[in-house]
Amino acid sequence: MAAPQLTEAHRPTLDQALEAIRTRAYWSPHPEHPKAYGESAPADGLAAFEALRGSRFELDQPGTDGWTGKETSPYGIELGVEYPHPDVDVLLPAMRAGVPAWRAAGPEGRALVCLEILSRISARTHEFAHAVMHTSGQAFMMAFQAGGPHAQDRGLEAVAYAYAEQTRTPRSAVEWSKPQGKRDPLKLTKTYTASGRGIALLIGCNTFPTWNGYPGLFASLATGNPVLVKPHPRAVLPLALTVRVAREVLAEQGFDPNLVALAVERPGEGIAKTLATRPEIKIIDYTGSTAFGEWLEDNARQAQVYTEKAGVNTVVIDSTDDYKGMLANLAFSLSLYSGQMCTTPQNLLIPRDGIATDAGAKSYDEVVADVAAAVGGLLGDDARANALLGAVVNPDVKARVEAAAGLGEVALESRAVVNPEFPDAVVRTPVIVKLDGTKPDAEAAYMDECFGPVAFAVAVDSTSAALDLLRRTVREKGAMTVGAYTTSAEVESALEDACLDESAQLSLNLTGGVYVNQTAAFSDFHGSGGNPAANAALCDAAFVSNRFRVVEVRRQG
Amino acid sequence: MAAPQLTEAHRPTLDQALEAIRTRAYWSPHPEHPKAYGESAPADGLAAFEALRGSRFELDQPGTDGWTGKETSPYGIELGVEYPHPDVDVLLPAMRAGVPAWRAAGPEGRALVCLEILSRISARTHEFAHAVMHTSGQAFMMAFQAGGPHAQDRGLEAVAYAYAEQTRTPRSAVEWSKPQGKRDPLKLTKTYTASGRGIALLIGCNTFPTWNGYPGLFASLATGNPVLVKPHPRAVLPLALTVRVAREVLAEQGFDPNLVALAVERPGEGIAKTLATRPEIKIIDYTGSTAFGEWLEDNARQAQVYTEKAGVNTVVIDSTDDYKGMLANLAFSLSLYSGQMCTTPQNLLIPRDGIATDAGAKSYDEVVADVAAAVGGLLGDDARANALLGAVVNPDVKARVEAAAGLGEVALESRAVVNPEFPDAVVRTPVIVKLDGTKPDAEAAYMDECFGPVAFAVAVDSTSAALDLLRRTVREKGAMTVGAYTTSAEVESALEDACLDESAQLSLNLTGGVYVNQTAAFSDFHGSGGNPAANAALCDAAFVSNRFRVVEVRRQG
Repeated sequence: MAAPQLTEAHRPTLDQALEAIRTRAYWSPHPEHPKAYGESAPADGLAAFEALRGSRFELDQPGTDGWTGKETSPYGIELGVEYPHPDVDVLLPAMRAGVPAWRAAGPEGRALVCLEILSRISARTHEFAHAVMHTSGQAFMMAFQAGGPHAQDRGLEAVAYAYAEQTRTPRSAVEWSKPQGKRDPLKLTKTYTASGRGIALLIGCNTFPTWNGYPGLFASLATGNPVLVKPHPRAVLPLALTVRVAREVLAEQGFDPNLVALAVERPGEGIAKTLATRPEIKIIDYTGSTAFGEWLEDNARQAQVYTEKAGVNTVVIDSTDDYKGMLANLAFSLSLYSGQMCTTPQNLLIPRDGIATDAGAKSYDEVVADVAAAVGGLLGDDARANALLGAVVNPDVKARVEAAAGLGEVALESRAVVNPEFPDAVVRTPVIVKLDGTKPDAEAAYMDECFGPVAFAVAVDSTSAALDLLRRTVREKGAMTVGAYTTSAEVESALEDACLDESAQLSLNLTGGVYVNQTAAFSDFHGSGGNPAANAALCDAAFVSNRFRVVEVRRQG
Repeated sequence: MAAPQLTEAHRPTLDQALEAIRTRAYWSPHPEHPKAYGESAPADGLAAFEALRGSRFELDQPGTDGWTGKETSPYGIELGVEYPHPDVDVLLPAMRAGVPAWRAAGPEGRALVCLEILSRISARTHEFAHAVMHTSGQAFMMAFQAGGPHAQDRGLEAVAYAYAEQTRTPRSAVEWSKPQGKRDPLKLTKTYTASGRGIALLIGCNTFPTWNGYPGLFASLATGNPVLVKPHPRAVLPLALTVRVAREVLAEQGFDPNLVALAVERPGEGIAKTLATRPEIKIIDYTGSTAFGEWLEDNARQAQVYTEKAGVNTVVIDSTDDYKGMLANLAFSLSLYSGQMCTTPQNLLIPRDGIATDAGAKSYDEVVADVAAAVGGLLGDDARANALLGAVVNPDVKARVEAAAGLGEVALESRAVVNPEFPDAVVRTPVIVKLDGTKPDAEAAYMDECFGPVAFAVAVDSTSAALDLLRRTVREKGAMTVGAYTTSAEVESALEDACLDESAQLSLNLTGGVYVNQTAAFSDFHGSGGNPAANAALCDAAFVSNRFRVVEVRRQG
């Protein structure tokens, strides 16, 4: 049962979302332009963010036994926010108290409450943008869009899938009548109730706390499960704000606010491991390293575990009829957020004999030099470089950039960019390294994920060899994205077959304003769930349909 | 793309199945009455079964390195059928050759081929009935219905869910156009292809080779995966026949017959373990013991594992307004197939102070005596007893019946029934044992699954204590079914809450011709997938939606 004002406010949006996931056409209710949020929104959002700094983030959760936190921005400023630390023996049982009422609300009631939460978050997008920027290191505009409307889209998409899956079976009483020839039919009355599995745990990541967090959070909540949010220790604030909004809306709508709670760990505590193996935790969503993702899969056996881990993304460069467009598109893809996206291309596979283009034949060396020049040109202006690159999220990324130069011949050196607004920010342009794909020591480099602004221009014997390497890379290392450029129908078909066989999402001949590293909710799947990079895709029916069970009650007569 | 004759023959059936899983109303295209299959069908079916006996079951599979098998019927006759033994290093790669064409057939093409397979099986229901009877020990009529139309219904249900899930995302090219203010919109063309995960392994069970096997087999095949069928060594024939029909239809429709293959093991070979951990195997369906189900979950980490294991089924007896109907219904449930159903009630929880009924107050002792008398009456006639009980499927069941008498006071002794047609059949009526629910040694008995014709009449302090025990039993031991009798709205509500919280399917006040151990495809879920008895339900979206992945190809312009 949904409150009438929620139905009026959000049912049309839910219906549009349901239509969008069916047609896969472009749609979003969340504006991308900062100006769309009202004249005072930028200043209000900044002020709200500044007011959070150096404060205690009160949540009024049960079982708070201390305070912890204090993130530092990749831009060099202290956030100084302290968050409640949970006594999980108190918090977890308290989170279950509200389950029966939340279950009784039904799929529509839960969906509409989730949409109200998203709507409140949307209204505060400017504040969230600063929180995302100063935890992930994304540049402001990217933090605004990816951390705001795009993340909200992914959350809404999950709610739509959850609603659709839960309402496939009717909820109200069904009359079942089985003919028995001349005798009276057998009759039963049946009801079906979607019922959550138990407490869901969201383990957030550093680089996209909201974008990667919202699908699991809203999928679990919309299917009737309480959600405990365990943010990455360096990216707490965006998810803490999310939890606060969710708790406010739940309480206002007459539900127990403890259906959503926050668990921030003390330095070095490793609370994720403790929580992940608790018997109350029945669902886990995780984005991060392969090592911890595999640990969760191996150890949290009482839970459904959805993991997005590392992969090695490939672009196959066979030929193009828009060489300039290809170079510009690749340059942007490699530069955006300093390559710190799970979808950023890493290996550019280029035939050593060169490729055919609309600008004539180009040798391997020419292609690499032209890609390097395109990146150099794109990032030549420091202001534009800062706006694209953001900041390096942690010292490991910086170390990898520096080490990459030693892996082969450097086609483009990484350079340090000064950010005048945040002088302590670590900003680096991408390094491009040439590797011979047939050399074993080169293989050790390009077959490993090198997360950050590092690209390998891998010389291969032929396009056919590139396809073989693509298949092997996806199968052994996983991939969130595959890109390719070709003018040959035959190569295109072989690329499709490879991606279908190995379960990878393919972007062909992108030369304009869409980039291989970006996916649009309601239309594009993020990951495939069928290769080692991730065991689930954002967002499909499989992502939601096992977060609840349907309990049937049948009565005679 | 489906052949036109398949579309004409089966698309209406598919549409009706899709409507049935949506409305959950009664529906089946497979008649339950033996006479519905034509006048000569009984004799033809028996002759076909007899012709199989003592023969080699040729399948023309690649990689056959010998012959094995030779089942003995629980009715005491030798089947003497030999099956091909696989060299899995040859067979598994051969099974993948047909995948691209099967993928290209699309969701509808695959569904219609699956329906043609089911339709051919349906036409041979009499032959299958004998094969199921002489491997499971079910009585003929049950083998006919449960092994024939009901199993075919479950297979069709899985095909319908698979089709519905795969067609949620459009397959054909979608134009995606994202407005860019005054600039031209961003445009992409997108295609989405449902792509199977890899080879699926079906590990069959002894008691319901077709009923428990068809959902996984058809769910995997319909979602684009080759299926390797590994039957229980004592129940090969029904699945071998199924594989043969599937291969025939696939070949006729221009697909590689090796998309479905049979793997029969040599005595003691344990081929299921070898197959389950092969990297080619990406999906496993299993019905059987908890121990091996858990082994699969722990070891076949490269695969999606769907398991139906053991549980302890409870009936709570609080009160009734149809005492006679309740007794008759319970007696039938306990007797059907000698209690060798995963859905047979085991623990009858009865307040020690007795219950209220339309025939007056009944003490615990009276209720137990009346249930015992009802079972005794139902099975008093040997012909009727044989028709209901079938045969004991293996020596372990016989041993458990004999041992059960030592666990407490026997309210009804098991008796041996002679089957005049099959004098070597082991036929046993149920034993009913009285236990005090509060005694620890009694708990050791009733908290363990005692598979076979054994029921425990457990005295509990109150209905409230029964509810507590019900919750604990489902949580710790799992349950495929829960039954209950009550005239109290309050108790009914508490029962519903317990089953919703613990994820168990509840049947209330069954006093007529529907029994707690029976579920109807398209309407009832078999298991919940949310308690330890099974990690999946037959059949819902979660059962099919992760057997395939959607691969997207997006192209500029």
